[in-house]
Amino acid sequence: MNDSGNSVAVGFIGLGVMGTPMSSHLHRAGHRLTLHDRDHAAAHALAARLGGNAVAVDTPLEVARRSDVVITMLPNGDVVRDVVFDESGLAAGLRRGALLVDTSSSEPWLTRETATQLSEQGVAMLDAPVSGAQWGAEAAQLVFMVGGASADLETARPLLACMGPSIFHLGPLGCGHAMKCINNLITALTLTATAEGLVMGKRFGLDPQAMLEVMNASTSMSWISRTHIESRILSRKFDDPFKLELMLKDMGIANELARDVQVSAPLAALGQALWLAASRAAGPGASISELVRWVERQNGCEITPGHAPAPVKGSDERA
Amino acid sequence: MNDSGNSVAVGFIGLGVMGTPMSSHLHRAGHRLTLHDRDHAAAHALAARLGGNAVAVDTPLEVARRSDVVITMLPNGDVVRDVVFDESGLAAGLRRGALLVDTSSSEPWLTRETATQLSEQGVAMLDAPVSGAQWGAEAAQLVFMVGGASADLETARPLLACMGPSIFHLGPLGCGHAMKCINNLITALTLTATAEGLVMGKRFGLDPQAMLEVMNASTSMSWISRTHIESRILSRKFDDPFKLELMLKDMGIANELARDVQVSAPLAALGQALWLAASRAAGPGASISELVRWVERQNGCEITPGHAPAPVKGSDERA
Amino acid sequence: MNDSGNSVAVGFIGLGVMGTPMSSHLHRAGHRLTLHDRDHAAAHALAARLGGNAVAVDTPLEVARRSDVVITMLPNGDVVRDVVFDESGLAAGLRRGALLVDTSSSEPWLTRETATQLSEQGVAMLDAPVSGAQWGAEAAQLVFMVGGASADLETARPLLACMGPSIFHLGPLGCGHAMKCINNLITALTLTATAEGLVMGKRFGLDPQAMLEVMNASTSMSWISRTHIESRILSRKFDDPFKLELMLKDMGIANELARDVQVSAPLAALGQALWLAASRAAGPGASISELVRWVERQNGCEITPGHAPAPVKGSDERA
Amino acid sequence: MNDSGNSVAVGFIGLGVMGTPMSSHLHRAGHRLTLHDRDHAAAHALAARLGGNAVAVDTPLEVARRSDVVITMLPNGDVVRDVVFDESGLAAGLRRGALLVDTSSSEPWLTRETATQLSEQGVAMLDAPVSGAQWGAEAAQLVFMVGGASADLETARPLLACMGPSIFHLGPLGCGHAMKCINNLITALTLTATAEGLVMGKRFGLDPQAMLEVMNASTSMSWISRTHIESRILSRKFDDPFKLELMLKDMGIANELARDVQVSAPLAALGQALWLAASRAAGPGASISELVRWVERQNGCEITPGHAPAPVKGSDERA
Repeated sequence: MNDSGNSVAVGFIGLGVMGTPMSSHLHRAGHRLTLHDRDHAAAHALAARLGGNAVAVDTPLEVARRSDVVITMLPNGDVVRDVVFDESGLAAGLRRGALLVDTSSSEPWLTRETATQLSEQGVAMLDAPVSGAQWGAEAAQLVFMVGGASADLETARPLLACMGPSIFHLGPLGCGHAMKCINNLITALTLTATAEGLVMGKRFGLDPQAMLEVMNASTSMSWISRTHIESRILSRKFDDPFKLELMLKDMGIANELARDVQVSAPLAALGQALWLAASRAAGPGASISELVRWVERQNGCEITPGHAPAPVKGSDERA
Repeated sequence: MNDSGNSVAVGFIGLGVMGTPMSSHLHRAGHRLTLHDRDHAAAHALAARLGGNAVAVDTPLEVARRSDVVITMLPNGDVVRDVVFDESGLAAGLRRGALLVDTSSSEPWLTRETATQLSEQGVAMLDAPVSGAQWGAEAAQLVFMVGGASADLETARPLLACMGPSIFHLGPLGCGHAMKCINNLITALTLTATAEGLVMGKRFGLDPQAMLEVMNASTSMSWISRTHIESRILSRKFDDPFKLELMLKDMGIANELARDVQVSAPLAALGQALWLAASRAAGPGASISELVRWVERQNGCEITPGHAPAPVKGSDERA
Repeated sequence: MNDSGNSVAVGFIGLGVMGTPMSSHLHRAGHRLTLHDRDHAAAHALAARLGGNAVAVDTPLEVARRSDVVITMLPNGDVVRDVVFDESGLAAGLRRGALLVDTSSSEPWLTRETATQLSEQGVAMLDAPVSGAQWGAEAAQLVFMVGGASADLETARPLLACMGPSIFHLGPLGCGHAMKCINNLITALTLTATAEGLVMGKRFGLDPQAMLEVMNASTSMSWISRTHIESRILSRKFDDPFKLELMLKDMGIANELARDVQVSAPLAALGQALWLAASRAAGPGASISELVRWVERQNGCEITPGHAPAPVKGSDERA
Repeated sequence: MNDSGNSVAVGFIGLGVMGTPMSSHLHRAGHRLTLHDRDHAAAHALAARLGGNAVAVDTPLEVARRSDVVITMLPNGDVVRDVVFDESGLAAGLRRGALLVDTSSSEPWLTRETATQLSEQGVAMLDAPVSGAQWGAEAAQLVFMVGGASADLETARPLLACMGPSIFHLGPLGCGHAMKCINNLITALTLTATAEGLVMGKRFGLDPQAMLEVMNASTSMSWISRTHIESRILSRKFDDPFKLELMLKDMGIANELARDVQVSAPLAALGQALWLAASRAAGPGASISELVRWVERQNGCEITPGHAPAPVKGSDERA
């Protein structure tokens, strides 16, 4: 039983680096868990580790039958659809009045389609993707971006609160997933702008380390300038855990969403084309830091600390 | 005499909303001031107000003759050149070993030309534009972005320290002025990206107030999201004191600087074209907030708090 | 009987301004026609006008049952799918060995889906969209852009040749529809570039009429400069029959196709965003000429013949 | 004496691959020539070859003293300024009423500065850059883009007509040089758009040879599609004689001109950034064809004739 005395029957599907700590926090708060992952052994191991009030089952259908609220944390919206609508999927087992909370990073339009179908059988849905990554999941410090009906959010709120204190209600269903992509789009554009600025400065003779200090004390400060540039770029590690391909996917979703509502966003459109070129150059599995490397290589200049000699105008140096 | 016991003969040219508090801080620290402004009355009034150790003169030449270090805070690099090289300009009066510190927002290449000419008569130069605006000048909290020789910066440092604690050495001469423009370029691109993201969210049905809260808790956080959007845009005041024309001018300098050192910066190039269109639409004297209004008008959508009904795909609503 | 002595049983679906003259040319060449349009009266009237060897029927299914080759000329790929797969659609009636030739401007991926399904019942498909518009259809001067198997093209060639002499085989199925969109994308970008060039010239003081003559005698010559600018823009008629919305739709298809095959096309991506803004400003039903008007309005300058006084740099004139 | 019975004393400065045939045509038409090139031997050799009515001199000053009209064909506007204003330059020798015709590709603002200074001594100026390259110069088929006063053009017209039949009057002084850059800007953007379209088609599975045939029969036809793509790109020769660096320089002039008159041209701005990246990758001396190679390499795809297998979505192939 949790602090408020209400133990909820919660299903949790998707037990990777995010889902494992998230479900553990729910269990610690006293909720009764039914766990599932397509890696059955992983689910059973987690259930064993958690002990009482946690069981593992081998299909989403069994999760649905045992739960009032089901939380999904899956790779993308297509996987969510499969988990809901496959033969042994959630839809076949969720009872009228149940609630599905999708914390994956899904496409807003897939979310709306799924929710529309579920609503026909009296099942509600929220989209609640997260910011904070693995660290946030482990520390119960996730930020939730929620789309859906306010009443459904009130049902889910005590559960979400076990995993993170910041719960923002963006709007109707799909708006959480939209926010996730828009947030990443703006992040990607800020990184691109910052990389362009650093490269032009470096080639003109400025010290990137000093540039960064100015930026962090001035109007071009951003999460990117504060946390990414020094530790990932100036260090030449290029090792941000956020994958370039996922960022590019989210930029694509945001741009498609913009076109759907007839919003002209020229910077966002160009940004996606640049990230696609960077993605091709970097190959699969690359970090978002590789976008900066791509800007460097296009311009034959590395953003290393120290003054570069100002290149002679018209010089023939090349990438 | 100041704390370190060294009272310097300082000339200060340009006594507007920035120069007046800046020179007052220097006076308070015990330095002997020679003041000049093309509005002679203003200079004399300030000298009278400061009292002992401050005199006003009517030409830059007289400033030069009485000073070891001259500080300029003028509208742009062309005005600086005139003040230095006009008939009764600084150049005619500066003695060998003197130092000129230009805190204006000048073009880096003009700065380098001016410095080259001054060096022939044994006069050194630093560029040291500021961030912090009027508030920073009044509170002695300016951020200085310095270009030039390290030895010259050590000469100037006690003086700059009277006006602000943050003094960053970016590189050789011109690098301070370059940093100022690059900082503003990145700020402008971040504002554009944020505006595009907010408009696509608003039209999709997200509440901009909630979007902003997510951004500020997540990776798309920036100085723009923290200080500009809520107070200037969501409030519908559009009243940032920073003028759109000045931002556009600095974007132009940064882009020209990039082309000079053969840096390809597509996002920056596009950004300048978009800001030029916004500037045409907004007219002279507009705030940088008008860039956001321009994005709104291009898309028939205002970033007002609250959920908009998701517009029907293919609807005929227009700007 | 036609010249080669082979009269084919041809079905034709979609009898608008394109389909009516196209089917008439087929009839004149001696082919036996089964006609259908969702406006049944129009189909029956055309059959009556053509006389012997032409009958009208009221469902695609009946067309399929009476034809060896069925040609569709419909508004878009969704309508094609409905005509094929609806309850009384073509799929239910086409026999093994039949051929469907879609001359509509469809999305390449819809075309491939449709073809895959049809192939399961032994029916082949070609995509063969056209260039040449109403005039080309009436004059039997259409240009066909064909995707599909070579053998299927040889079956269709005598029929297509009745409607236009230019038949280009682009590649496998879907490549015709892809070509149509790519052609329109390049056309749209050329129009945008030309409009930008004309506006910058006009504001600098050049006579657009003389500019156009130079362009047509030089390397910036294009179909746009040869046929669109003088008659639609310099004349101030803005009345090109090609609709801006259709151009924008095709730009969107081409860009989506590019993303699907991981091609980074920054100019194309930006172009789509600009055309979307122009489309919003122009409203539904506008001509592609309105893109030029949008560029004019963004810049407070009309591309009218004659020298404009060169505007003073920094002037405050506005759109 | 020429056909119209008027032999003019013409000076010609700059005797390279353009100037040599141009001056020869003037000589053939009966005009009296004074020739100069900084390669004195070349000028004397040409004079000897032409025979009577042609003399070579060793300074622009001597050209000026012997001529009523002086024609320059030089690398750029800076060289023109030097030839006019150097110690032994034209300005020192041109008499009141003389006319300078600059057929070089100069910056419009340099042209206006030069003309303003010359006008103080009663010397008129026209800018008359050419299209047609070496072939056009040799065949007397140049296209002249003229800026300046109509009366001055009437003075020059019989001379220009010896070198090419197409003489277009764009507007006041500088408008010829502006037209040259705008023409090249539009050409460059058309090439970029065409390259992007061909690469997306090729990767989707279209045959570039067939694509080109469709384009040339359709609305995306351009000088680029008609003359550049097949002979330079599909042939894999990449050997257009027009240099990428010169195109990039002209794009820069056109964009600067646009900014000077406050024209927002986003496609042009982005285009310049892309060409700069291509120029860096290609190195000095590269042909404009290398822009296409750069687009190919960004996308891991060569525009070779033939169908490519449609790449699998999400494949890991890279540039």
